[in-house]
Amino acid sequence: MIVKTIECKERTVQLIRQTLLPKQLEYLFIEDYQQMIDAIKVLDIRGAPAIGIATAYGLAIASTCDKNMDIAKLARVADQFKASRPTAVNLAWAVDRVMQRVEQERPATHELLCSLLWDEAERIHKEDRLLCASIGECGSTLISDGDTILTHCNAGALATGGIGTALGVIYTCRDQGKEIKVYVDETRPLLQGARLTAWELMQERIDVTLICDSVSATLMKQKKIDHVIVGADRIAGNGDVANKIGTYSLAVLANAHSIPFYVAAPYSTFDDSIKSGADIEIEVRPDEEVTCGFGKRTAPDGVKVHSPAFDITPAELISYYITDKGIKAGGRKN
Amino acid sequence: MIVKTIECKERTVQLIRQTLLPKQLEYLFIEDYQQMIDAIKVLDIRGAPAIGIATAYGLAIASTCDKNMDIAKLARVADQFKASRPTAVNLAWAVDRVMQRVEQERPATHELLCSLLWDEAERIHKEDRLLCASIGECGSTLISDGDTILTHCNAGALATGGIGTALGVIYTCRDQGKEIKVYVDETRPLLQGARLTAWELMQERIDVTLICDSVSATLMKQKKIDHVIVGADRIAGNGDVANKIGTYSLAVLANAHSIPFYVAAPYSTFDDSIKSGADIEIEVRPDEEVTCGFGKRTAPDGVKVHSPAFDITPAELISYYITDKGIKAGGRKN
Repeated sequence: MIVKTIECKERTVQLIRQTLLPKQLEYLFIEDYQQMIDAIKVLDIRGAPAIGIATAYGLAIASTCDKNMDIAKLARVADQFKASRPTAVNLAWAVDRVMQRVEQERPATHELLCSLLWDEAERIHKEDRLLCASIGECGSTLISDGDTILTHCNAGALATGGIGTALGVIYTCRDQGKEIKVYVDETRPLLQGARLTAWELMQERIDVTLICDSVSATLMKQKKIDHVIVGADRIAGNGDVANKIGTYSLAVLANAHSIPFYVAAPYSTFDDSIKSGADIEIEVRPDEEVTCGFGKRTAPDGVKVHSPAFDITPAELISYYITDKGIKAGGRKN
Repeated sequence: MIVKTIECKERTVQLIRQTLLPKQLEYLFIEDYQQMIDAIKVLDIRGAPAIGIATAYGLAIASTCDKNMDIAKLARVADQFKASRPTAVNLAWAVDRVMQRVEQERPATHELLCSLLWDEAERIHKEDRLLCASIGECGSTLISDGDTILTHCNAGALATGGIGTALGVIYTCRDQGKEIKVYVDETRPLLQGARLTAWELMQERIDVTLICDSVSATLMKQKKIDHVIVGADRIAGNGDVANKIGTYSLAVLANAHSIPFYVAAPYSTFDDSIKSGADIEIEVRPDEEVTCGFGKRTAPDGVKVHSPAFDITPAELISYYITDKGIKAGGRKN
C-alpha cells in the first residue's frame, strides 16, 4: 500500500511530517488553519498537488474552527494560504476553485459553509488520486521493461494525494511487471530526493540508487540513464516548466546526451494565465538551508548565498508532458 | 597574506586541518608518515598539488623518524602514499620525482638520505608556489575588469603550495585592480566549495556568493556567468580532464550556454602516460559522505549510493587550459 501523505477521516486531517523523514515516520494532526499554513511553509507538507489538497482542507478547518466565519473572512484566510508558497500553481488553483464554489453557492449557514468546504476538499483530494493514476498509466507507455529512470526531488506519493506524478509512472510500470531501476538526485538544499524519494521507493521495494546532484551528467554520458522524469510546480502557457531547482540543469544535460526528458503533472499545473516561464515568480529560500541545513554549519559565517527554490525549464528542452489527459509533445526536436 | 595550507619550518611540517573549516582554523603537526597518509585519506589536506607536496614531506618525515630507513624501505612507504588517493596524478608524480632523485644520488648515510628528502620536498613546495603565480598571470589575461567567474570545489591556496590554480587566477586579477565577482558551487558531497573556497575568498575580501551545485545552470542562462574556471586532478594525453565530480556537468552546461570553460593546472597535472580520460581510475568515496555527511543522517538506512569523487571532462568541452607555461587551446569550438 503506497504511503499517504495527507489523510482525512471524519473531518480530522493528518499529514506525514516530511521534515522528519527518513528518520521518523510521524503524523501531524491539524487543529487550526494557521498550523496548516505553517506546515506548508516549513515543508512538512510539500509537492505542488499535495499543497493544493492541504490548502483546501485548511480552508475547511478554518471555517470549522470559527463560528463567525463568512465569505469575506474566508477570502482573507485564502489570501494567507496563497502567500505561503508563491510558485506552485496548485495552491492558488485550489484556493480559487474553493472560493468560486463558495461564491456560487453562497451557503446560508455556518454549518452549510463548513459542509461545502469539507466536500470540496475531499473532491479535490479524490480527483488528485485519479489524476495520479491516469498520469501513471499514460507515462508507462513511454517506458520499457529493464529501463533506468533518473528523477529529481520528490514527485511521488509524498507530493500528491495519490501515487505521485513522476514516481506514479514508475509504480505503474512496476505494477505492469516491468523491471525498473531508478537513480535519484539528492536534491540540495533540502534533500527531498535523499530523504523522501529514496525512502518512498524503498518502501515499495523499487531498485533505487541515491546520487549527488552533480553525478547525473556522468551517468548520462555512461549511457546508464534511459529517461529523465520530473514533476512540475507550474507550467506556463508556452510550455515552460517551473520545478525544483536543478530541473533546468538536468534538462540541458539530457538534451546534450539525447536522453528523453519528461515532465509529469496533472492538467491543473498548466497555468495559461501565464505566458512564459519568465513571468513565473520564483521563491527564494532562506540562506540557512544551504549554510547549515543539516544541523551543522558548513559555510563561513556571513557568506552571501543565492538559493532559488525553483528554476525554469524552457519548453524546447522537454520531450513530452505526461498528463492525466494523455501524452503531449514538448518542444524538443532530438 | 594568502592562507598557507602546508608549511615547513626546520623540518617541522604543519597542515591546516581542512575538515574543520570554516568553523575552526586549526593546524595539524605531522609527527610520522602514517599521520600524513591519514591526513590525505580523510582530506585534512586535499587538492592535487597540495597532496603532492604533502607526500614529498611525508617521505622526508618517514626517513627522519626511522634510523634504519633505506631505499627499499622508502619505496614501500612511497607505495603506501601512492595508494592513499589514486586519482590525482601529482601524488604519484611527487613520489616518482623523489624516488628518482634518491636512486640517482644513492645517499651513503641516513643523514644524507634525510637531507636529500627534505631538500626535494622543499623544492617541490617552492616550485608549486611559482607555478601558481605563473598560472595566475597567464589566466588573468583571459579575464576583464567586472567579470563574474563560476568555480567548483576548491582549486585555491588551500589546494596548493601557493595562491592556487583556479583561485590563483582570481587573486592575480584582483592584484591587477580588476573587480571580480565569484559564484562558487558548494560541491557535494564534501562541500569544499562552501567550506573552503567561500572561506578562502572571504579571507581575501573577494565578492563571493555560495550556490548549490544545481543552481549554476540557471545563472548561466541568466547571463550572470562570464567564465567557468576549475582545477584538475589529472589531465590525460588527449586533454581529457579528471576533476571533482560535477566538473563534467558544468562543462556541458557552459558549452550549451556558450560560456568559456577553463581548466587551470600546473604542467605536472598533464599525464601523457594516460591516453584518454577513459583510462583514468576514478576513486569512489564512502556512502556516508552522501547519507550522513553533516553529522545527521539524511537518507534512509540501507539505501544504495553511487558516489564517484571525480568525473571526466572531455577535451572538446574545454576552451583553454591555463598552465604555468601559458594558455593552451582546448578542443571546444564555440
